[in-house]
Amino acid sequence: MRDIDQPSQVGCSIDLSANGKQHGHMMVPHSRNESAWGTLMVPIASVKNGDGPVMLVTAGNHGDEYEGQLAVLKLLNRLSADGFKGQLIAIPALNLLAQRADTRVSPQDNGNMNRAFPGHPRGTVTQRVAHFVWQQLMPRADIVVDLHSGGHSLNFVPSAVMHELPDKELQAKTEAALKAFGAPVALQLVELDAVGMLDTAAEEMGKLFISTELGGAAMVTPETVGVADRGLDNLLKHFGMIEGAPSGHQSRMMTTPDGAYTMSHHAGLYEPLVELGEEVKAGQEIARVHFLEDGGHAPVAYTAPISGLLYCRRVQGWCGRGDTLALVAQDL
Amino acid sequence: MRDIDQPSQVGCSIDLSANGKQHGHMMVPHSRNESAWGTLMVPIASVKNGDGPVMLVTAGNHGDEYEGQLAVLKLLNRLSADGFKGQLIAIPALNLLAQRADTRVSPQDNGNMNRAFPGHPRGTVTQRVAHFVWQQLMPRADIVVDLHSGGHSLNFVPSAVMHELPDKELQAKTEAALKAFGAPVALQLVELDAVGMLDTAAEEMGKLFISTELGGAAMVTPETVGVADRGLDNLLKHFGMIEGAPSGHQSRMMTTPDGAYTMSHHAGLYEPLVELGEEVKAGQEIARVHFLEDGGHAPVAYTAPISGLLYCRRVQGWCGRGDTLALVAQDL
Amino acid sequence: MRDIDQPSQVGCSIDLSANGKQHGHMMVPHSRNESAWGTLMVPIASVKNGDGPVMLVTAGNHGDEYEGQLAVLKLLNRLSADGFKGQLIAIPALNLLAQRADTRVSPQDNGNMNRAFPGHPRGTVTQRVAHFVWQQLMPRADIVVDLHSGGHSLNFVPSAVMHELPDKELQAKTEAALKAFGAPVALQLVELDAVGMLDTAAEEMGKLFISTELGGAAMVTPETVGVADRGLDNLLKHFGMIEGAPSGHQSRMMTTPDGAYTMSHHAGLYEPLVELGEEVKAGQEIARVHFLEDGGHAPVAYTAPISGLLYCRRVQGWCGRGDTLALVAQDL
Amino acid sequence: MRDIDQPSQVGCSIDLSANGKQHGHMMVPHSRNESAWGTLMVPIASVKNGDGPVMLVTAGNHGDEYEGQLAVLKLLNRLSADGFKGQLIAIPALNLLAQRADTRVSPQDNGNMNRAFPGHPRGTVTQRVAHFVWQQLMPRADIVVDLHSGGHSLNFVPSAVMHELPDKELQAKTEAALKAFGAPVALQLVELDAVGMLDTAAEEMGKLFISTELGGAAMVTPETVGVADRGLDNLLKHFGMIEGAPSGHQSRMMTTPDGAYTMSHHAGLYEPLVELGEEVKAGQEIARVHFLEDGGHAPVAYTAPISGLLYCRRVQGWCGRGDTLALVAQDL
Amino acid sequence: MRDIDQPSQVGCSIDLSANGKQHGHMMVPHSRNESAWGTLMVPIASVKNGDGPVMLVTAGNHGDEYEGQLAVLKLLNRLSADGFKGQLIAIPALNLLAQRADTRVSPQDNGNMNRAFPGHPRGTVTQRVAHFVWQQLMPRADIVVDLHSGGHSLNFVPSAVMHELPDKELQAKTEAALKAFGAPVALQLVELDAVGMLDTAAEEMGKLFISTELGGAAMVTPETVGVADRGLDNLLKHFGMIEGAPSGHQSRMMTTPDGAYTMSHHAGLYEPLVELGEEVKAGQEIARVHFLEDGGHAPVAYTAPISGLLYCRRVQGWCGRGDTLALVAQDL
Amino acid sequence: MRDIDQPSQVGCSIDLSANGKQHGHMMVPHSRNESAWGTLMVPIASVKNGDGPVMLVTAGNHGDEYEGQLAVLKLLNRLSADGFKGQLIAIPALNLLAQRADTRVSPQDNGNMNRAFPGHPRGTVTQRVAHFVWQQLMPRADIVVDLHSGGHSLNFVPSAVMHELPDKELQAKTEAALKAFGAPVALQLVELDAVGMLDTAAEEMGKLFISTELGGAAMVTPETVGVADRGLDNLLKHFGMIEGAPSGHQSRMMTTPDGAYTMSHHAGLYEPLVELGEEVKAGQEIARVHFLEDGGHAPVAYTAPISGLLYCRRVQGWCGRGDTLALVAQDL
Repeated sequence: MRDIDQPSQVGCSIDLSANGKQHGHMMVPHSRNESAWGTLMVPIASVKNGDGPVMLVTAGNHGDEYEGQLAVLKLLNRLSADGFKGQLIAIPALNLLAQRADTRVSPQDNGNMNRAFPGHPRGTVTQRVAHFVWQQLMPRADIVVDLHSGGHSLNFVPSAVMHELPDKELQAKTEAALKAFGAPVALQLVELDAVGMLDTAAEEMGKLFISTELGGAAMVTPETVGVADRGLDNLLKHFGMIEGAPSGHQSRMMTTPDGAYTMSHHAGLYEPLVELGEEVKAGQEIARVHFLEDGGHAPVAYTAPISGLLYCRRVQGWCGRGDTLALVAQDL
Repeated sequence: MRDIDQPSQVGCSIDLSANGKQHGHMMVPHSRNESAWGTLMVPIASVKNGDGPVMLVTAGNHGDEYEGQLAVLKLLNRLSADGFKGQLIAIPALNLLAQRADTRVSPQDNGNMNRAFPGHPRGTVTQRVAHFVWQQLMPRADIVVDLHSGGHSLNFVPSAVMHELPDKELQAKTEAALKAFGAPVALQLVELDAVGMLDTAAEEMGKLFISTELGGAAMVTPETVGVADRGLDNLLKHFGMIEGAPSGHQSRMMTTPDGAYTMSHHAGLYEPLVELGEEVKAGQEIARVHFLEDGGHAPVAYTAPISGLLYCRRVQGWCGRGDTLALVAQDL
Repeated sequence: MRDIDQPSQVGCSIDLSANGKQHGHMMVPHSRNESAWGTLMVPIASVKNGDGPVMLVTAGNHGDEYEGQLAVLKLLNRLSADGFKGQLIAIPALNLLAQRADTRVSPQDNGNMNRAFPGHPRGTVTQRVAHFVWQQLMPRADIVVDLHSGGHSLNFVPSAVMHELPDKELQAKTEAALKAFGAPVALQLVELDAVGMLDTAAEEMGKLFISTELGGAAMVTPETVGVADRGLDNLLKHFGMIEGAPSGHQSRMMTTPDGAYTMSHHAGLYEPLVELGEEVKAGQEIARVHFLEDGGHAPVAYTAPISGLLYCRRVQGWCGRGDTLALVAQDL
Repeated sequence: MRDIDQPSQVGCSIDLSANGKQHGHMMVPHSRNESAWGTLMVPIASVKNGDGPVMLVTAGNHGDEYEGQLAVLKLLNRLSADGFKGQLIAIPALNLLAQRADTRVSPQDNGNMNRAFPGHPRGTVTQRVAHFVWQQLMPRADIVVDLHSGGHSLNFVPSAVMHELPDKELQAKTEAALKAFGAPVALQLVELDAVGMLDTAAEEMGKLFISTELGGAAMVTPETVGVADRGLDNLLKHFGMIEGAPSGHQSRMMTTPDGAYTMSHHAGLYEPLVELGEEVKAGQEIARVHFLEDGGHAPVAYTAPISGLLYCRRVQGWCGRGDTLALVAQDL
Repeated sequence: MRDIDQPSQVGCSIDLSANGKQHGHMMVPHSRNESAWGTLMVPIASVKNGDGPVMLVTAGNHGDEYEGQLAVLKLLNRLSADGFKGQLIAIPALNLLAQRADTRVSPQDNGNMNRAFPGHPRGTVTQRVAHFVWQQLMPRADIVVDLHSGGHSLNFVPSAVMHELPDKELQAKTEAALKAFGAPVALQLVELDAVGMLDTAAEEMGKLFISTELGGAAMVTPETVGVADRGLDNLLKHFGMIEGAPSGHQSRMMTTPDGAYTMSHHAGLYEPLVELGEEVKAGQEIARVHFLEDGGHAPVAYTAPISGLLYCRRVQGWCGRGDTLALVAQDL
Repeated sequence: MRDIDQPSQVGCSIDLSANGKQHGHMMVPHSRNESAWGTLMVPIASVKNGDGPVMLVTAGNHGDEYEGQLAVLKLLNRLSADGFKGQLIAIPALNLLAQRADTRVSPQDNGNMNRAFPGHPRGTVTQRVAHFVWQQLMPRADIVVDLHSGGHSLNFVPSAVMHELPDKELQAKTEAALKAFGAPVALQLVELDAVGMLDTAAEEMGKLFISTELGGAAMVTPETVGVADRGLDNLLKHFGMIEGAPSGHQSRMMTTPDGAYTMSHHAGLYEPLVELGEEVKAGQEIARVHFLEDGGHAPVAYTAPISGLLYCRRVQGWCGRGDTLALVAQDL
């Protein structure tokens, strides 16, 4: 038996086959110095009413991405099992230890949840959570939605994201759902390195999978939470799980071609010259890096590698060598 | 002799009485484990041409406030001593150890530079820098400008700031300079607890003093850097140090009355309901705190204590007990 | 004006002169990297009904001493202002940052609250809290009770503690209250080094002051919490603040003479040979230190310096050079 | 060849096949920043006299469990090879780096030794030690004894522990040895998750295996060390390795059924209502969690899930979500 | 496909098949809290002119070994592609994160680069770098040179090092190159535990491999850098890659037999009695360990296990149990 | 009463007025998380025989300077009270917490012992030790010797050091003692910033004071320890405290004029071009700083500011901005 087919030791305090609205926990054994017989209790909720589509929604895959976490909590508050059709399984903070620390990866095991799939039933805490989702939750789902945003270091034009898929029928269905989500931008991507992602795990199981990038800077705004709130409602409507028709933005369909990234080759103070969401021309100066401790040293300019929309930028007022400064998207 | 009147042990590698543009360092003895005879070299520059007003401009008083740091570097790059009148003394990162660490206070001595004035000639690194500024630089200046923004935890509508002063002639001159700065908002404040601030040290010496709050979130935008760039130019023009007339915004004159702060009494996820810079009504719901680990617990609402402009908000997507969530300003 | 006579910047969210039961906070400005305009909110409560004695009860002076913290919370839950006489001001965790961290001293400023009195209005967080208590709360009180126990490193026979006082009338009153408390042991002490203690601050103001040592090991037992619960009730009864007569133990009156301490001169594994609360004879072997990494090295024996009750012992299974292993008390 | 069958790189400074009493070290290569060619020297001792049973005794598997460590050191001090029969191989602190740090797991590699078996010959330090024990020591032994206690977070009624085994003859022999140990309680368990334990490694090799839980709170008492001392003597007598007949308690034979655990769902101050070792009834209130920072919030009660003996409780005066508060044992 | 045969995700910013002198980076994806889309940029350079031998030179395999790092930078500065024959691929700091931290192993993943080969394409940063070198660079090379020195904890007589090889023709060629290097000592070794070393990876590919030990104490001297400078020149001349004949020392051919190491069994202050590079006799006292905190305790003496040259000694003025104090080499 | 005239709370376990050789401790109260009633036990020894000069010798003032620590321990081992005249009071590691950590300053309070004099009786641990030495030990002494070397970051030509003194008679006596010490170099200095030094405290009390710089790099060599051993013997002989005449080097009398320091203005790899102890000419290139991460960037050269002996150099193979690279001494 493969290691990952060993049964998970993670418990679940709610009955996922029962109707109604339930709040509970994934219970991850976590023996540590302060608690020999401790358990990490990762919140999970289910809203179920009879048969119908099953949607698994996760947020807090990276702990410092808050739009999705808020949107999941708000959705659970406003949903009732009455009138619902099918099942929503929702996890507001997948990497709970990172969430508590306001960090991308878990401070306990340095684990990046979105590189940990399909996880391991006897691995680190991060790997055990990933494995439980992969082994026990994903197989129940028809649709998997993983809500990301930029975290501390990146800021995005709010967008829903899908991948180009080998199964063209699934791709068409995913594209329809993507449009239904109704974010300002809808991005279609080819991931260069998708190993270990929740995305890949879901797609390899044949699930309809949608991700998002909903803002960033480890903060939220009324606008970015609004995109998330409406997007989740729209998806539930799109799949007939709640009543009504999707509303909101006509999403701009875009993609990010090879060579769309601008990476800093210098460490210094980062000055963006273009606001997020503006159009740029190839060769246009979009950022400068200044050198605070070298008096009189001229700044270095960075230019847009292609024309398009400034879809993503670095957040902090400083950058190190190798940090991504900008990403340009083009209409599909 | 009072302790603070002992001579500073901090050296200065440039001749502050010489004409021309010079880049150098404040040299702060810093014996430590890695370097028994080490020196912290804090950048300082001077642009001088004959007689005229002397302006001391500091930024990076808090290490994670980047607008001012960039504006100072950019100003030094574009200024030349030719055609200049008087002297600009500029320090782009007053708390250099905090600046390197992307933190508000120094990781070396936990020092908040803006609570360290007038400093101490034999104290911590932070106190020694403050003392050198107070003892050696401030007395040379006619005008002192300290550029702040919100740092990691706060975000502001870009603004210039002055205090109500007992000397009404100085207050009038300061107000004129404040308007010349040309930020969207010009704030007139009574500080409740001003002990240890650079502001207080400058004002007590009878200097014309101006501060700013130029954005925040430890990031910069083209807009917020632009306010800083134009503001510094405007001040130099206002005092006749470079040619031309101040341009830009007609600043909105505002203040923040007692009771304008909203403080969280809960730890949780922080959802702002109003965008920075929008008008709010007293009693209007402006934020909610959600409880991620208490499944099904309803969020708590926070309302605006007064009507006015949402001048400042918390950045992060979470808050702890006692964190400031919002500050409302009113027209003067 | 002396520094300590400057007004405290700490706010109080409840009206200490109002009748009724109120829960609120001492609000300590705490600007830091994560929250530029943050406030530490230290819980405080008042139960008041008209005139009568004012008793200030503090616990969590050291963060890892839990009996008192629980006793204060339980007392506040069962008290009502009806039928109460006078005022109880209660602070369940004086050094809140240490309490959150399960440590003796504050991890924020390394501050030992019980060496910080009378504090400083512009000092560290620990000093500001101490100063507020000293300047704003203690002067209101007739009786001050500070509830300690052993914390992580010490374990005590549950006891109430007073000092020998120069004012013999106050000493007699204090002794009466000490007996009323009703702990198994009542200790009368001469402190060798009392500078900075809350005890000293209260006694120097002429307050009736009682402290405790209620167990330890950073844990609580039903017995040790029970001593605390009953002791607080007994004090309130003794001073006529609630109805009824003190009950419980006839306390054994003891003291710890010079030379009653046993200190380790070796680092190793600590094996106690006598249970806490047993009688020992001078010269009796009471502990051994074993040397795990020196195979075959014989352990070193420690003997009781005087005869008496084993009143206090080290908790951990190891010791370092200079750690206190035991303290013997003798009947007064 | 499987990885774990590669030869260990750990050396042993004593000759395990030689007669007599020897003290030496397991020598674990440990290249690190401070010592490029460093070695971790884990103490090991052998007492051997001709043929007879071979008993491997380990303690300090978790670094903060001290009863077993002391008992092994004391046993080695009082044993002599003369009159001994067979061989005792003893390791007083299996996870030496955790032992030095007073922690459960190793601060060097975060390794929980009791989840690391059978280890890896080229893994972390923790894995290398586990592998040496598994590959080089366990195969020599007829009997394996691993001495645990509660460490910093748990406290137990002193007990010896065995597992239900598929080999009923081995189970009967183990039960006889368990009774001979003579602890107040003798527990027979089905482990839910035994992967990686030293227990499992020994049992899978067909060894007679006994474990213990001998107290806790990272401290020792004369009583708990006494149970360990007498238990080791009793086992040596039971197997005829030293002269004499086992003495001491008639152990109470117990087990912990499913559902015997009480886990906290709240973070707060933990108040136990029942002393360790007392009888409880199903539904009886056994603990409360209090909320220090929520003034006036009532505590939450926890009740015993089954009737029986309060066999184990949490130590610290606080608890987090998911921490085990209590475990109830029932007579077999 | 084996894991290690999966393609590396590490990019290379220079074209290794192009002629000329190029400076660029190995680009290692490094997503982390501060930079979600960050890249570690490890410097790499190529000097190529047509066909000829390909030599891969690495330094900074351990971050705190500086002689090789300086020698590589200096070589790259003085080499030009004109007149060069073949190709030099040079990496001045293989474990760049350790180099930045002045440590042996990486502070990011605790990775010892010289135990990480052949690495893993999806492992830690250290493993990814090792894997790229193994998969993409080593196969291009005819000769591999890895420049070590003692780092913080060891100091060596400057020496070049090779292993005894099963392929005697390769051994003869390696020995010729070793002599050409011209260090004061040329060491021929049998490694006891060579798994994971760059050495082993190169030798298993059939490459001519040479290592060095060029001094130590995390410092450099004009002498030790000189040995490295001349050694690299000599190797390039030996293989006809630059003009001229090797010059310098007639190396003393030595080896370190079994039992040549002296390891401390005590923790204390370390006093060496023999200077590095002096001759010692078996049984001669070469070091003492003193006990600072045990007043009056006599020091412990350590003697040379064999006669020969004191080839290596511990650096620091203190030692722990298990630290290597000295290594004696003998003429081959 | 001045704060520093309050009595020290530090105890001394030996009777400093008794004849004979005694080893004991300065006992510094050190309440902390791990030990509420803990004591730091700093070793101190006395060798006394009747009347005669009293010499106080301290080492480990900076924790990572080992020559003096070893020399004091060795001296105490070889001295006997018989035949001694007067008293030696010796402290091998003044900053014991720094000594344990192999650091310059104390990790407990970040205290630089040599900037802490005259200390404070209720200050940090470092201040309390300094105060005890100043208040209780120094007044007993006629001669004070404080043994320094370079620690982790500096390396010196072994030397004894004195200051130019206002009292010319004391200066002459000190110079005689300095020559008697017999180090290769004898340095006469004017300290620029002597506040807080043990030196200053001793000189202000009118004591004959000698310091040393005996090597460095946090290591020792037989040569540097030999200079210390012989130097202490020579001083004892010089003052008639043991029999015999000083022997050893005719010290070269030197000084370090203003402008003798070379400080790095760049962060990079540090390559010294001159060995310690060599003669340099003003303007001669003595070091280069190389830039590892800027491929192809030429190194920066540093030249000797004056002609003389390269008396001191930086140790590490890297440097930061503001680090001292070299110090040149000239003959007096």
